[in-house]
Amino acid sequence: MTALSIDAGRLLQRLRTLGEIGRDGQGRLCRVAGTEADKAGRDRLVAWLEDSGLEVIVDRIGNIFGVWRPRACAGQAPLLLGSHIDTVVDAGIYDGAYGVLAGLEVIQTLQVAHFQPARPIALGAFTNEEGARFVPDMMGSLVHAGGLSLETALAAADQDGVTLGEALARIGYAGDVEPGFLKPFAYVELHIEQGPVLEREGFAIGAVESLQGISWQRVTLTGTANHAGTTPMGLRRDAGLAAAETITFLRGLASRTSPDAVATVGSLRLEPDVINVIPSRAVFTVDLRDPDEARLRAAEAALGGFLSDLAGRTGIGVAVEPLARFEPVTFDEGICRRIERAARARRLSVRGMTSGAGHDAQMIARLCPAAMIFVPSRDGVSHNPREHTDTADLVAGANVLLDVVAGLAAEGA
Amino acid sequence: MTALSIDAGRLLQRLRTLGEIGRDGQGRLCRVAGTEADKAGRDRLVAWLEDSGLEVIVDRIGNIFGVWRPRACAGQAPLLLGSHIDTVVDAGIYDGAYGVLAGLEVIQTLQVAHFQPARPIALGAFTNEEGARFVPDMMGSLVHAGGLSLETALAAADQDGVTLGEALARIGYAGDVEPGFLKPFAYVELHIEQGPVLEREGFAIGAVESLQGISWQRVTLTGTANHAGTTPMGLRRDAGLAAAETITFLRGLASRTSPDAVATVGSLRLEPDVINVIPSRAVFTVDLRDPDEARLRAAEAALGGFLSDLAGRTGIGVAVEPLARFEPVTFDEGICRRIERAARARRLSVRGMTSGAGHDAQMIARLCPAAMIFVPSRDGVSHNPREHTDTADLVAGANVLLDVVAGLAAEGA
Repeated sequence: MTALSIDAGRLLQRLRTLGEIGRDGQGRLCRVAGTEADKAGRDRLVAWLEDSGLEVIVDRIGNIFGVWRPRACAGQAPLLLGSHIDTVVDAGIYDGAYGVLAGLEVIQTLQVAHFQPARPIALGAFTNEEGARFVPDMMGSLVHAGGLSLETALAAADQDGVTLGEALARIGYAGDVEPGFLKPFAYVELHIEQGPVLEREGFAIGAVESLQGISWQRVTLTGTANHAGTTPMGLRRDAGLAAAETITFLRGLASRTSPDAVATVGSLRLEPDVINVIPSRAVFTVDLRDPDEARLRAAEAALGGFLSDLAGRTGIGVAVEPLARFEPVTFDEGICRRIERAARARRLSVRGMTSGAGHDAQMIARLCPAAMIFVPSRDGVSHNPREHTDTADLVAGANVLLDVVAGLAAEGA
Repeated sequence: MTALSIDAGRLLQRLRTLGEIGRDGQGRLCRVAGTEADKAGRDRLVAWLEDSGLEVIVDRIGNIFGVWRPRACAGQAPLLLGSHIDTVVDAGIYDGAYGVLAGLEVIQTLQVAHFQPARPIALGAFTNEEGARFVPDMMGSLVHAGGLSLETALAAADQDGVTLGEALARIGYAGDVEPGFLKPFAYVELHIEQGPVLEREGFAIGAVESLQGISWQRVTLTGTANHAGTTPMGLRRDAGLAAAETITFLRGLASRTSPDAVATVGSLRLEPDVINVIPSRAVFTVDLRDPDEARLRAAEAALGGFLSDLAGRTGIGVAVEPLARFEPVTFDEGICRRIERAARARRLSVRGMTSGAGHDAQMIARLCPAAMIFVPSRDGVSHNPREHTDTADLVAGANVLLDVVAGLAAEGA
């Protein structure tokens, strides 16, 4: 524990300021990657980084870095903090933004205190973590880690056919530095939990030891459009009904598998989508998550088996397109123990835990030791304007980050 | 049986001509009510009616009538034939158009043969039978029968807020005659079956004795948007899952109720419709049909009970909006027996049957004795470009209509 603490007022003010940037006509926070709203948020962040005297670097995938590189440690691999500032549609103000702004707050606190790091400290804001417009999500950190080629990422197109590359160029954040230029010594990401565990169990801090594996697929079921009144139930090939059966199957599958397994169908479209016509086509997404890779594979196989059986039983055509796949991640044990020690030194209750959400940390963990710090989310709500973390928890999390960063940055090579 | 037969070549040519009117940029037949495509179809029909020397009358709801009124029978109530020429999106060419053009063909055949009717013979093409743009469907015939006020019908708005009244005025088919001006002696409608029964059982002609009751509802389920990775299955309020459970429930309900009962969810939208967010809202339509009113009411009650139970069990909010409701209709037995006799006299196999689809005939049956003639639909397909009826069946159906019309029109008051 350092004798320092972050400037809570400054952190909260910046969270509120950024949280007002990117509101749509209905007042919804929609700072979706590559939009004008995203540009406005990026511009605000870059101004804050520059005001803090950090070197600002934008790479070709649009990741923004603010680097504090004292002359004495210029040759050392930097300690990297970070998260993202893009949001889903109708988002809360903490998801991602909290980690970025707390990271900036930590760096400024150390600067003001004339802290002498043994290595540079950098802050990253990664492009398109949410995947709300361009697939896959966690794209900027994935490209940084070398897990996806820059060309493929820039060619990702939204529903209107606009590519991420075009969108970044349009908003002025297609940088010229090659992604991955920064090789971190270690990575720490502070984030709201986005789940109910810490609040329900009464912990202030989570030391995130692992992260669920994620499997995203798009399923297209093809039946026969037919008149809703004249086609007996037994003679139908109803793609909408087949989708409904798949959704209820997935619910049972996840519930049976493990308390940690989840399955979600978030997006579904029917064709022709008319009241008196049996749906000829249903297109829906499947989001499967499990902290255990073997179980996640078993869930994917079970879905595949169900769909094969469905096709055989009903004559419905089945096409499955993989959209994204990430194996479960185990974070660095040493950093997790540092997080626990820092929390206890501040008399904060802390527990080790698994993250159910994907985070940029899982990508950067391919490059260096990495871990995450979680703070409670009220009612576990996220991706929703009701997303909330108490002020005391926001400040506590940032101070734990401060102590962990001070400890890691004090270490030599 | 008259010694006459219709001009098969002329009927088929007109079916093909009208079937090419109203194609969209992708070649899909979309002669949706009140559109420019509908206008083009109406203009073609009116030209044919005028060429045949019929008196053309357009009423305020846009219904088009072509009346053959020989001077000798001017004071008599007319025998009415009819159907509709509007279509769903991506339709086949026979649904509705067959009945209208065969009716015209029958009148022309009788005229050419110097047939002397005891009463006028009129042909009606009713506005917005399909309900693809304006709700409810079968609107023109419903207004004609006095079941819906003209003002309410003209105020029906499409998804863009355009009213039917505005649309009719724009295409020049807001007539000035009051709906219901024509009080028919009897009504006969020839139509493709739009179901598989006649083809599967090898019948050429169906004498339609009754028509299923129809219940249309819109259901809105409201849950909680939440992160797809961090929210345990047991803590979710997933509106999409609740919709899926409702769809599978409806399938089982219809299958258990009776071979004649059907249930369809044709339209479904999720919000926010994003891959990694649990749906907060699902809006879907329910189309229930049964030829027995008591059973149809029981099905509506069972759905209501299921939704109440769902709300209590999951905390999902439920709102149900009735969209349309028609009781089952029993057609006139005397006309059905005429249809059977006419078919047998032409050595065509015939059976009595129930219609699963709604038709204008059910509305006009409120005013006078009415019945319908069905011909087979290949594979039972309708509301789909694969809709098909063999030429021999099309011609046979029109000749049965000719004989029934000649018989009814020969009768005095």
